[in-house]
Amino acid sequence: MKASRRRFEPAEYLERQTKTRTAMEAAGLELLIVTDPSNIGWLTGFDGWSFYVHQCVVIGNQGELFWFGRGIDAPTAYLTTDLPPSEVLSYPDHYVQTSELHPMEYLATIFKQRQLHTRRIGVEKDNYYFSARAFEALATSLPTAHFQDATCLVNWQRAIKSPQEIIYLQRAGQVIEQVYQRVLEVAEPGMRKNELAAEILHASTWGTAEHYGDYTAIVPLMGMGEEASACHLTWDGTRLEPDQGMFLELAAAHHRYHCPLSRTLYFGKPPAKYRKLEQVIAESIERLLPLFKPGNTCGELAQTFFNYLHHHGYEKNNRCGYSIGMSYPPDWGERTMSLRAEDSSILQAGMCFHFMPGMWFEDWGFEMTESILVTAQGGACLANVPRQILVK
Amino acid sequence: MKASRRRFEPAEYLERQTKTRTAMEAAGLELLIVTDPSNIGWLTGFDGWSFYVHQCVVIGNQGELFWFGRGIDAPTAYLTTDLPPSEVLSYPDHYVQTSELHPMEYLATIFKQRQLHTRRIGVEKDNYYFSARAFEALATSLPTAHFQDATCLVNWQRAIKSPQEIIYLQRAGQVIEQVYQRVLEVAEPGMRKNELAAEILHASTWGTAEHYGDYTAIVPLMGMGEEASACHLTWDGTRLEPDQGMFLELAAAHHRYHCPLSRTLYFGKPPAKYRKLEQVIAESIERLLPLFKPGNTCGELAQTFFNYLHHHGYEKNNRCGYSIGMSYPPDWGERTMSLRAEDSSILQAGMCFHFMPGMWFEDWGFEMTESILVTAQGGACLANVPRQILVK
Repeated sequence: MKASRRRFEPAEYLERQTKTRTAMEAAGLELLIVTDPSNIGWLTGFDGWSFYVHQCVVIGNQGELFWFGRGIDAPTAYLTTDLPPSEVLSYPDHYVQTSELHPMEYLATIFKQRQLHTRRIGVEKDNYYFSARAFEALATSLPTAHFQDATCLVNWQRAIKSPQEIIYLQRAGQVIEQVYQRVLEVAEPGMRKNELAAEILHASTWGTAEHYGDYTAIVPLMGMGEEASACHLTWDGTRLEPDQGMFLELAAAHHRYHCPLSRTLYFGKPPAKYRKLEQVIAESIERLLPLFKPGNTCGELAQTFFNYLHHHGYEKNNRCGYSIGMSYPPDWGERTMSLRAEDSSILQAGMCFHFMPGMWFEDWGFEMTESILVTAQGGACLANVPRQILVK
Repeated sequence: MKASRRRFEPAEYLERQTKTRTAMEAAGLELLIVTDPSNIGWLTGFDGWSFYVHQCVVIGNQGELFWFGRGIDAPTAYLTTDLPPSEVLSYPDHYVQTSELHPMEYLATIFKQRQLHTRRIGVEKDNYYFSARAFEALATSLPTAHFQDATCLVNWQRAIKSPQEIIYLQRAGQVIEQVYQRVLEVAEPGMRKNELAAEILHASTWGTAEHYGDYTAIVPLMGMGEEASACHLTWDGTRLEPDQGMFLELAAAHHRYHCPLSRTLYFGKPPAKYRKLEQVIAESIERLLPLFKPGNTCGELAQTFFNYLHHHGYEKNNRCGYSIGMSYPPDWGERTMSLRAEDSSILQAGMCFHFMPGMWFEDWGFEMTESILVTAQGGACLANVPRQILVK
């Protein structure tokens, strides 16, 4: 079976693996167990919704690179990666979701067979899907191994995007433009919230005539009226009401690369508090965009934004953005850089951020955000959606 | 702010909490840290896409019950639970996704303030989103606590559904009927796979005129031709081809309660191997349905099915179903009972299973499944979708 689903040239995957091995060496690691699906996908191309059971990719400094997962998911590895069949290793199905046996015990056996059990092994202790028990099973089964936390080691390698990755991000940007076009066309008071969500999902998956829409790592988030104070609420079957504001936190994806972008919808004439915040946020984006260039730090950008807000009478005590790229549920962020005062990471060309000046108050909320590519000339928005309240 | 989003009567939540405390007592636990979003939701009603950051519900044998999460998610707790504001506790935003600080360290401080730090504490070591580092941070910060694995303790309490839960499951069943109706209407060769996915997502979210469609814990899975060997593949932008089979593993959800249901689509005249398997699987469902009644075991059901398959020349070496109910990504299963030979769990009325006789071969795949409620009279399907290959 050939890798009919490959998204990047083999050379690009090799380059990513080399970068990762270099970072492993710097961290004193001989082997790394990669459990975060986004890291697995970035390193090898593996793409399937199988992360609800234990799986990983193992990469070593002696050239080791293999996928380990459930038997029925091995064909996904054949279709989506360039790994030879000898490096697609699977555990039997009675290891799935049972308290009796753990897939990581099976992996330990493979480590012993391959003489990897005395290595210095990195594990992603705080990445998604690497459970406390997964680590316990590994550590108990491999008493001679030396384990070290390597949370986000691969995530950091993903920060600067390749030209092909930037193309995918820009295509996701084209898709999100279509999504907001659809919202403007169809949203109206009286419609059930789920009907609006249905239109959004249809548009984001349909994509453009050239570029398909992939599923997004977070579903559409929306909150209306008082409920807009809750920034991670999803829809129900209640109706859109006139003279109310609603935030929409949406994204589009292409080949798993995400362009998140939020706007606020208002049915009727937006009250002064909406209009004032709209202006302040729009101006802050204009002001911040040129600062998304190599050399500036995440902290400087965040502080500039917070100062600007403060000057206009607003306070924000949560981060105003984060690094983005390829992603699987439950998050479209890369969990490396955050736009907040404490983060001293230095921007480099090819990095990408969701600049997220969302404001949530006791009984309302407002979002108007951009996904921004760092270039030598300053920030370049991935999408072109009117930067204003969507009024209907 | 009132709990405008409540889905069950307060008495039902109280009953669930009581059941859980009884199970805790049997397990020798004084306190339980619940991190699985499905368990959090089932115990308290909490509902939001905030599980991409650390959060939990803490339940204790002295009446303790509080939510702990990120500050900006506290309003979600006000809107979706009956917890008083004093029991909605949050950590500051600079604890989010950083290697410097861990939210579980902040929780440890709360435990000390509330004199909970010497208790016998259960943790869901192998449930979703409870990372190895989350446990390490807790254990290091609370050296006087005694920790014990309580993986799936709450999941097991969810196994038997209440009348209101069954209503939600049946509504999800009505929604999935609409989804397959849509598939039959729109699917045709030449269409891009993402366009079919867009229609599926639209139909599953639109729901019925009475009942809204919630997001599903897994996105539509689909594989065509050779790719149908990979059972957890999602769509891309390639086109549906004539004279090919495609499995569709879909679900609908209502108030987070899921009805998964799979069918196989064929454009043209299905070859004999499809028709033969269709007949065998259809007969096996007819034969198995009456066995979904109290007293039978998961293992007996699975063995009856495997024997039937074997008799017709097929072998299946993976489980043929699992318990279902309310769920959040990444899985719509409850991760307690599996329909496989090794599982001796006894069926009880009100349990619900996705009976999953999916077959994947080297270069094709076939799925025809049912979601089934256990009743004294045998299994009752949650949905009524023609049990045959969908031919177009």
